[in-house]
Amino acid sequence: MAGGVVTPDDVERAAGLIAPYVRRTPTIEHGPLVLKLELLQHAGSFKTRGAFNRVLGEPSIPDAGLIAASGGNHGAALSYVGGRLGVATEIFVPSTSPDVKRRNIERFGATAYVVDGYYDDAQAAADARQRETGALQIHPYDHPATVAGQGTMARELDQQVAAIDTIVVAAGGGGFVAGQAAWFGDRVRVVSAEPETSQCLRAARMAGEPVDVDVSGVAADSLGAKRLGAVPWAIVQRFVDEAVVVTDDDIRAAQRELWAEFRLVVEPGGAAAFAALRSGAYRPGSDERVVVAVCGSNCDPSTIIDAS
Amino acid sequence: MAGGVVTPDDVERAAGLIAPYVRRTPTIEHGPLVLKLELLQHAGSFKTRGAFNRVLGEPSIPDAGLIAASGGNHGAALSYVGGRLGVATEIFVPSTSPDVKRRNIERFGATAYVVDGYYDDAQAAADARQRETGALQIHPYDHPATVAGQGTMARELDQQVAAIDTIVVAAGGGGFVAGQAAWFGDRVRVVSAEPETSQCLRAARMAGEPVDVDVSGVAADSLGAKRLGAVPWAIVQRFVDEAVVVTDDDIRAAQRELWAEFRLVVEPGGAAAFAALRSGAYRPGSDERVVVAVCGSNCDPSTIIDAS
Repeated sequence: MAGGVVTPDDVERAAGLIAPYVRRTPTIEHGPLVLKLELLQHAGSFKTRGAFNRVLGEPSIPDAGLIAASGGNHGAALSYVGGRLGVATEIFVPSTSPDVKRRNIERFGATAYVVDGYYDDAQAAADARQRETGALQIHPYDHPATVAGQGTMARELDQQVAAIDTIVVAAGGGGFVAGQAAWFGDRVRVVSAEPETSQCLRAARMAGEPVDVDVSGVAADSLGAKRLGAVPWAIVQRFVDEAVVVTDDDIRAAQRELWAEFRLVVEPGGAAAFAALRSGAYRPGSDERVVVAVCGSNCDPSTIIDAS
Repeated sequence: MAGGVVTPDDVERAAGLIAPYVRRTPTIEHGPLVLKLELLQHAGSFKTRGAFNRVLGEPSIPDAGLIAASGGNHGAALSYVGGRLGVATEIFVPSTSPDVKRRNIERFGATAYVVDGYYDDAQAAADARQRETGALQIHPYDHPATVAGQGTMARELDQQVAAIDTIVVAAGGGGFVAGQAAWFGDRVRVVSAEPETSQCLRAARMAGEPVDVDVSGVAADSLGAKRLGAVPWAIVQRFVDEAVVVTDDDIRAAQRELWAEFRLVVEPGGAAAFAALRSGAYRPGSDERVVVAVCGSNCDPSTIIDAS
């Protein structure tokens, strides 16, 4: 992974390394679309793939174990990884995070510390604690091993679906979309979907480099990165073909349809790619074979179903 | 389908007939088990397969359309069938049915009539209305075409999973388990799972013929048939190898685990087969390749998630 660029070989190696620990998630046809049900992954999102590859790739883990700041899916995934590998794990959670996400973190065995404030406050607390304990801090997206782990979903798709033209993927800090792009390269059109209210990938494309953006909206807890990661950017700038945005209303409507049509409980960020198709933000051609990643389920179902 | 016995050829024909209308549902590995995610079927349960095969097999549909009594999944499935085929559909729903089930019936276009009382009261109202309108009444399970339609799930499984030893399937009136048994015959061990509180299949095996039983418990809205169907019985008595029961607590625990581990919202009846494995009611051998049908999702998710 020289220079931070992740190659298909890196993804191939990641797949071998994490195979005993991750779930091969199923696909389902929906007219001309294929949905990749990555929300059925252990701990409820794709993050588990990257977290395993990152941790298993370390030559040794300090006695203090693993540490991270996370309001949600990364924390749940890392907690799951720590639990499976028998490594102590501490997660610092902002008090503004949904309660259901904190419970998911604790369910798999990590210790969750709730920090008053927003993500940055949790990150500062995690940093301070890390200096104290010497634990290994795991970033949610900005590391080649994490990106390569996320890319194992794309490799799996190649085995499941023939002749993919396009994949549509939600983007926050960019680790997930970069992983898919690293595997597919120029073979498949890669489309990122971001909320209108937190679009750091589009901002990076416009500025020619990652820049800070404001974040808000219904999907901010999973897609609300302030700035695209440097490692993802190296891949995104080369292999992401189109970057579209969706509104919060598009996302809510997509969540309702995913429940009504498929009985899937999908969190806002996990529904963003489906929202891009549903809203017309991305319009495939008539013969285009499109895979839509449905990538996270960590939410309170009553926020979807009561509205339907 | 002479004599009410459904053969693999009948299932094969059903698969061809309903293919444009039903979803190929995915499978997922769980240790040595395979889960068949039939809850992701259109209208949220396997019932859609049988209902399409039954209706499409009719030489003509009366102008008054389709009619049924149903507190739940059969009504939702028939509503879906009517909607897809453009046929008027009336469903008579007992007032004791969960509200979420009535909404599922109306979502797909049928007219739902709520009848004060229990299933028998709804059935009486449907019968009276049928005599008035001449609509085609569709029984939820006791018809060879319905059983053959349910059997298409087993045929699909044969294409998805190699070398199946055993399939564990929930049983209510017996249409679903009979469909699987009709396809697999003696090739695969077929195990039925019933709630302790509504076990008409076990009662039929003990009596040597279908007999009336009392029904109650958390899964009564989907598995609470008072008597095994005559058509299912002809197959069940020959090809169901073992009939196990689960408690309401087993079912609730299975629902919680299906959410926590797989992010699947599964109604009580849909979780009964998984409960049989989880509780030890059915104990597979060490090398036994077991498929567990997870077959219905029509419930209020807050009944599962709040308890977890």
